[in-house]
Amino acid sequence: MPTIIQKFGGTSLSDPLRIRRAAQRVADARQSGFDLVVVASAMGAMTDDLIDLAEQVSPMPDRRELDMLLATGEQASVALLAMALREIGCPASSLTGGQAGIRTDGVHGRARITRIECGRLERMISRREVPVVAGFQGTSDDGEVTTLGRGGSDTTAVAIAAVLRVAESGGYCEIFTDVDGVYTADPRLVRAAVKLPRISYEEMLELATLGAGVIHARAVLFGDKYGVPIHVRHSQKPDHGTMISRENPDMEELAVVGCALKDDLGRVSIRQIKNAVGLQGRIFTALAHANIVVDDIMQTEQGSATMIAFTVDHADLSDSKQIVAKMLQEMGEGEMSVEVGLSKVSVVGVGMKSHAGVASRMFRALGEAGVAIHNITTSEIKISCIIDSAKGQQSLEAVHSTFGLGLGTNATMAMQLDSSQP
Amino acid sequence: MPTIIQKFGGTSLSDPLRIRRAAQRVADARQSGFDLVVVASAMGAMTDDLIDLAEQVSPMPDRRELDMLLATGEQASVALLAMALREIGCPASSLTGGQAGIRTDGVHGRARITRIECGRLERMISRREVPVVAGFQGTSDDGEVTTLGRGGSDTTAVAIAAVLRVAESGGYCEIFTDVDGVYTADPRLVRAAVKLPRISYEEMLELATLGAGVIHARAVLFGDKYGVPIHVRHSQKPDHGTMISRENPDMEELAVVGCALKDDLGRVSIRQIKNAVGLQGRIFTALAHANIVVDDIMQTEQGSATMIAFTVDHADLSDSKQIVAKMLQEMGEGEMSVEVGLSKVSVVGVGMKSHAGVASRMFRALGEAGVAIHNITTSEIKISCIIDSAKGQQSLEAVHSTFGLGLGTNATMAMQLDSSQP
Repeated sequence: MPTIIQKFGGTSLSDPLRIRRAAQRVADARQSGFDLVVVASAMGAMTDDLIDLAEQVSPMPDRRELDMLLATGEQASVALLAMALREIGCPASSLTGGQAGIRTDGVHGRARITRIECGRLERMISRREVPVVAGFQGTSDDGEVTTLGRGGSDTTAVAIAAVLRVAESGGYCEIFTDVDGVYTADPRLVRAAVKLPRISYEEMLELATLGAGVIHARAVLFGDKYGVPIHVRHSQKPDHGTMISRENPDMEELAVVGCALKDDLGRVSIRQIKNAVGLQGRIFTALAHANIVVDDIMQTEQGSATMIAFTVDHADLSDSKQIVAKMLQEMGEGEMSVEVGLSKVSVVGVGMKSHAGVASRMFRALGEAGVAIHNITTSEIKISCIIDSAKGQQSLEAVHSTFGLGLGTNATMAMQLDSSQP
Repeated sequence: MPTIIQKFGGTSLSDPLRIRRAAQRVADARQSGFDLVVVASAMGAMTDDLIDLAEQVSPMPDRRELDMLLATGEQASVALLAMALREIGCPASSLTGGQAGIRTDGVHGRARITRIECGRLERMISRREVPVVAGFQGTSDDGEVTTLGRGGSDTTAVAIAAVLRVAESGGYCEIFTDVDGVYTADPRLVRAAVKLPRISYEEMLELATLGAGVIHARAVLFGDKYGVPIHVRHSQKPDHGTMISRENPDMEELAVVGCALKDDLGRVSIRQIKNAVGLQGRIFTALAHANIVVDDIMQTEQGSATMIAFTVDHADLSDSKQIVAKMLQEMGEGEMSVEVGLSKVSVVGVGMKSHAGVASRMFRALGEAGVAIHNITTSEIKISCIIDSAKGQQSLEAVHSTFGLGLGTNATMAMQLDSSQP
């Protein structure tokens, strides 16, 4: 039988009742004959509560000690889940990340998995016992407790699926969460949005980065690298969710599979500056040193002068402004302007590599909806437009509609409608 | 400089403010030149909260999984304490029981320490870094997380003091708790009670067993076995507490150092039974199998018939009654009676080995106070009387007064007064 890795997020384990429900789901899958490994996050808001506690003791808590503290969250939830499994007669044992063989580098707070010593997991599976592994954590080679950073439990699950080669026997990784799956757009914003039965790693990666918080981008990257199919589904409903996997070459590609909206952006624009070698490196290194995550970067030239603009989360705008202002003063040239209240609407689809006219169609739809486009950035499978936040939802609906994403009950219908309009 | 082991209990670490205060106390001791190891319990009521949570998931939680769960309590508190220490510039790192080298047998829930691999502790001490060790926990030889049972953090602290041979260089173990030290009687019951500056292991052991809950009996046994002086003191006050150590041969012994009252006892008496070989073994094995902790056992003979009585906690009385009734029915002889509402008043002192008349003086004091004595048990350094609970406090005060325990401001004065009255 195939091996399935089941990962339960914090909201799926937020109280004893939900823990017992998750246990029943695991026991049912085992009863159906599957071999299983379970990965669990900390209960509900426990990680945030622990961080609050740490900050009351030390405003900038030591990273090693914060890892020791945060690791207790997942350890508690796997112990409780294993108890609940044993209670209903399902043989199970909890394992810390270290006990499960998850080895990481020593970078506390954002450690990377270096290898998984999976002997213990394999021995448990071979005797039909369910390992319940603490997600988000591991140990370094010198036995220190490390954490993988936010979204780390998804990564743990996909990495275990990769090292156990579950795909070879038809297995996959199930991510149980509090949403039904991946939608053509955020269903809270676009009423017509439909659930996608499948999506490629690349598309999911773009959507994850663009604000569709269903699964962490890092886990998708891991899945892509090792070919692990990832099934994202609702923890409290039996329905099929969305399967993230390699592009299926037999299937005609969708030009656009989904769209996303990212709010609360600010933009810093620099004008009247000479495009000297190393200019861009200097600006963005200074921002990185201040831990500012830059969203998109745009550059255009006009004669010998350059214009560089970038977007950041609104929370980082004030720091960004100060850093750039200081730099321009040092250089003795350039003008800076800052805009707030911006959003980014994006469309994503592997098919746009081969379908012409996706960009023009998106711009036309925004124009017809009366939305001004402030900036444009593109990748091979994504087009993003910076717009006024006030027009955010309207833009998302216009784009969702022009690509026919909501018209079908599944993505295949959406694709056909799209292909029929050049 | 001597090495000191500082142990902080749950009430000393129940919130961020107390954690920062405990950290200051550690940093001050290090600043004074001491080498230090810190041992910490779980914060406040955390262990009880975790047990509640477990019982909501599984009414009889699996012991291995319960250990995984409970161990998170101490791990969280050592991480927070280490953060607080680093925040005030004191080099410190938290260690789980396993990381600190605490190896136990595999009996989950009440594991015994088999050895301590103290290399890591010694290396940290030698570079003046403070190890902050999770009490109450260890790992078995196959890497499983175990807990030592209630009072386990005291045991961890004394065991580390023993293995590091801190006494050889003048070091000791400090137990920070929410009381000032060991008193001649419970100061909540006897207003005249005074704090004892020192007490022997044997005396403390008797008092701990008799209901003076200052420090766990198991830790005292460990201290006695390895000669570790234990200083019990208040975590929020600078005052000297009580030093528990070997008897000092140069000092005249006190006949009685303290007295204690244990409430809520019930008594089962068996009469009219033949004193066959193996009778007692049969009765008390059956009780032990039912996990009933028998307090005191008394036996007397009258002709060929025997009377056996024993006291148990009131909570265990109903089970005890059933077990004994069943046994007598099987044997076809014997009568059983059960009394409730009993208490035990005891006096303890190493000196009573050599001082005559301690028992008679205790009985006379109880008689003068109008207290009927139902049973008497004695050890070399202890005399206990079973009395009616309604007379409990009155008995304790009478005994405390007759041995002059409260007359001085310290035990030396109490001893002198006591010695002057034959």
